[in-house]
Amino acid sequence: MATRNDQVSSFETASCPLPLQHKQQIVMGHGSGGKMTQDLIKSVFMPHLASEPLAAANDFAQVALPAGANLNGYLSISTDSHSVAPLFFPGGDIGSLSVCGTVNDICMSGAVPLYLTAAFILEEGLNMQLLEKITLSMQHSAEEAGIQIIAGDTKVVEKGNADGVFINTTGVGWIPSEHRIGGEQAQPGDVVLVSGDLGDHGIAVLGARGDLGFESNIQSDVAPLNRMIQALLKAAPNTHVLRDPTRGGLATALNEIAVQSHTCIRLDEESLPVNPAVRAACEMLGFDPLYVANEGKLIAIVPAKEADAALSAMQQNQYGSHAAIIGKVEASPIDRVLLKTIIGGTRLLDVMAGEMLPRIC
Amino acid sequence: MATRNDQVSSFETASCPLPLQHKQQIVMGHGSGGKMTQDLIKSVFMPHLASEPLAAANDFAQVALPAGANLNGYLSISTDSHSVAPLFFPGGDIGSLSVCGTVNDICMSGAVPLYLTAAFILEEGLNMQLLEKITLSMQHSAEEAGIQIIAGDTKVVEKGNADGVFINTTGVGWIPSEHRIGGEQAQPGDVVLVSGDLGDHGIAVLGARGDLGFESNIQSDVAPLNRMIQALLKAAPNTHVLRDPTRGGLATALNEIAVQSHTCIRLDEESLPVNPAVRAACEMLGFDPLYVANEGKLIAIVPAKEADAALSAMQQNQYGSHAAIIGKVEASPIDRVLLKTIIGGTRLLDVMAGEMLPRIC
Repeated sequence: MATRNDQVSSFETASCPLPLQHKQQIVMGHGSGGKMTQDLIKSVFMPHLASEPLAAANDFAQVALPAGANLNGYLSISTDSHSVAPLFFPGGDIGSLSVCGTVNDICMSGAVPLYLTAAFILEEGLNMQLLEKITLSMQHSAEEAGIQIIAGDTKVVEKGNADGVFINTTGVGWIPSEHRIGGEQAQPGDVVLVSGDLGDHGIAVLGARGDLGFESNIQSDVAPLNRMIQALLKAAPNTHVLRDPTRGGLATALNEIAVQSHTCIRLDEESLPVNPAVRAACEMLGFDPLYVANEGKLIAIVPAKEADAALSAMQQNQYGSHAAIIGKVEASPIDRVLLKTIIGGTRLLDVMAGEMLPRIC
Repeated sequence: MATRNDQVSSFETASCPLPLQHKQQIVMGHGSGGKMTQDLIKSVFMPHLASEPLAAANDFAQVALPAGANLNGYLSISTDSHSVAPLFFPGGDIGSLSVCGTVNDICMSGAVPLYLTAAFILEEGLNMQLLEKITLSMQHSAEEAGIQIIAGDTKVVEKGNADGVFINTTGVGWIPSEHRIGGEQAQPGDVVLVSGDLGDHGIAVLGARGDLGFESNIQSDVAPLNRMIQALLKAAPNTHVLRDPTRGGLATALNEIAVQSHTCIRLDEESLPVNPAVRAACEMLGFDPLYVANEGKLIAIVPAKEADAALSAMQQNQYGSHAAIIGKVEASPIDRVLLKTIIGGTRLLDVMAGEMLPRIC
C-alpha cells in the first residue's frame, strides 16, 4: 500500500504540475476572476480576513453607520498603496503596515475606525505561505485596531511586472462630532507634541535591506494609533491637529501643517525624542532622523492649556511612553518650520527636496 | 542673445538632467512624500482630480453623508486594483476603467455613488504626459458618474518592478433604503436581463495587445452604469440582483449568483446579445464570449412582473440599447447555470476553471 501511494503521488507530481504548483505559489489564473481566484480567496484570505460583508460575496460591501451615529457626523476616508521593500522587516511587514498605515490616516481626523478594504496586486510566482503570513499579520493589526475588513480584490501580474506584492488599503471611519481636526486648524499659541522616538521605521527597513552596513536591532514602530487618539481626545478635547509623520518624517509633516495653517512651527531640538541607535545609524549614513519615516507615531497640536493633559494621555498608552512636548506654534514667519538647535542657533527645517528613502511604505 | 540662451539651456541639460527629466518622466523622488511628490500632485493630479477634501491636504478626507440621508440607509463600499495591459485600448484606458469599474461595483447595491479614492503605483521612467492623459480620462469618467475624487496616494517603484502604472480605486456610495439588492436575493420565478452585447471589453483589450492576429475595430464597453441603474430601479423597484459581469464574464457572474441564492439560472442562448465581430473573434481564438470580460454591462434579476419595465428602462439608456431578457431563475438544480443551446440541447455553464484572459482590468 505504501508503495502504491508513493507511485500515485509521484504520478501526480510528474504529470500534473499545476494543481500542486498553484497551492505553493501564485500563478496567473489566481487573478482570472474564476475558480482559482475563488480558491485563493477561500484558502488564504477568508480564514484570516473574514467578515460578514466579505462573506456575502457581492461586488460591494453593504455596511451600516456605527450604532448611535447621528447625521451631524462625518465620514473619514483615506487610501494608501503599500510597496515596501523588503516585504518583511524587524517589527513588521507589508501586512501590518498596510492596515496600520490606513487606520492611522483615517484616525488623524479624530474618527473611530470602522471599515477597511484590501486590494492585492500579486506577482506570479509569489510563495503562497508568504502571502498567508502577510494576511495573518493584517488580521492581527485589524483586530488590534478594531477595524473590519469588508471588501477585497486580487490581481495577478506576470513575473517581473510587480515586486512580490503590493497592497492597497482604503479605510472608512466615523467622526462623531462637528469638531474639526486638521492641518489648517493650528493656531499661534498652540503646543506641538510627538508621541515617541523619531525615525525608527525608516531605519528598520533600511536595516532589513542590508543597507546599514552593520548589524542593528532597530525595530519598526508600525502600530495602530486609534486607541491612543481616543484617549488623547478625551484628555484634550480641543485638539487642533493630528498627523502621522510617515514618508518625509516629522520635518515634512510639520512643513505641511505650517503651510496649511499659515503659521510658524518652532521646535526645540533638545526635546526631540530619538532612539540613540537610530541617531547613530543616521549619523553614519548622513541622514537626518527628522526626515525619516515613522509608522506608529503621531504629531498632536493642542491649545496650550490642554498640553499637559495630552502629554499624559499619550504617555499612558503603550505606544506613547516616549511622548514629548517638542515645540510651539507662532504667528510668523508664516509657512515655516524653525528649529532651535542644541548649540543655540536657529535653522530652517525645509520640506525634503527629492528622494531620500524610497519604498519605505 | 540667442547663442547665449542656447548655451544656458544646453548647460542645464548636460549637468542638471534631473530638473528637466522629472518634468518628462516619473523618477523615484516623486514617491518620496516630499517636495517632488507635492509637485507631481499639483501639476498632474490636482488640475484634473481636484475636490475640496483633496485640496484640504490632510491624511484623511472628511466628507458628509448626502443631503437628505437618514440613518436607515447604508454605505456601499468596493475596491479594485487595476493592472490592465496595455494601458490604452480602443474605447478606454486604465483611467476610465479604474473609475467606471469601482463606480459600477458600488452601484450594484442600488447605491448612489458619492466618493472615490485613487491610489497610483507608478513605475520609474513612466512618461509624464501619458500619466496626465490617464488622469484626464479619470476626470471625464468621474464627472460622467457624478462621483467626487476625495483622497489619493502616489507610490513609485524602481523600473522593472511595476508595469507602467497600477491604479487602485475605492468607492463609497449611499444606499438610501433598506431594500436589499444582492446575489443572495435571486428567487425562483425571477427574470434575468443583461444590458447589452457580451465580451466587448475583453476582445478590445486583446486586440490592443495585437493578439487577435487580424485588424479589428471592436471597442471596449467601459462606462459608468449608475444612471442606468437609477432609471432601472425606478422602473423595477423590487429588483433582486444587480451585477456587472467583469472578469470571467456573464457565465462566471451568473454562477456566483446561483451559488449565493441556491437557485438554478436557466439561459436561452438565442437571446444572448453578442456583437457579430466579437463572436467571430471568439470563434477564431477558441474563446466563449460568455466568459469574456465586460466593463459597461450589468445583469439584472427582477420579479417577472417588473421585467418588461426593467427592459424598457435599460433600452432607453445610452448604454443599454441592446438590452435583452436572457433567462429565468428556477428552484433546481440548485447552484447551477444551464444554457438552452440554439440547436435545442441544454449544457452546463460552469465557472471558468483557471486563467483565460489575464491583465484584462
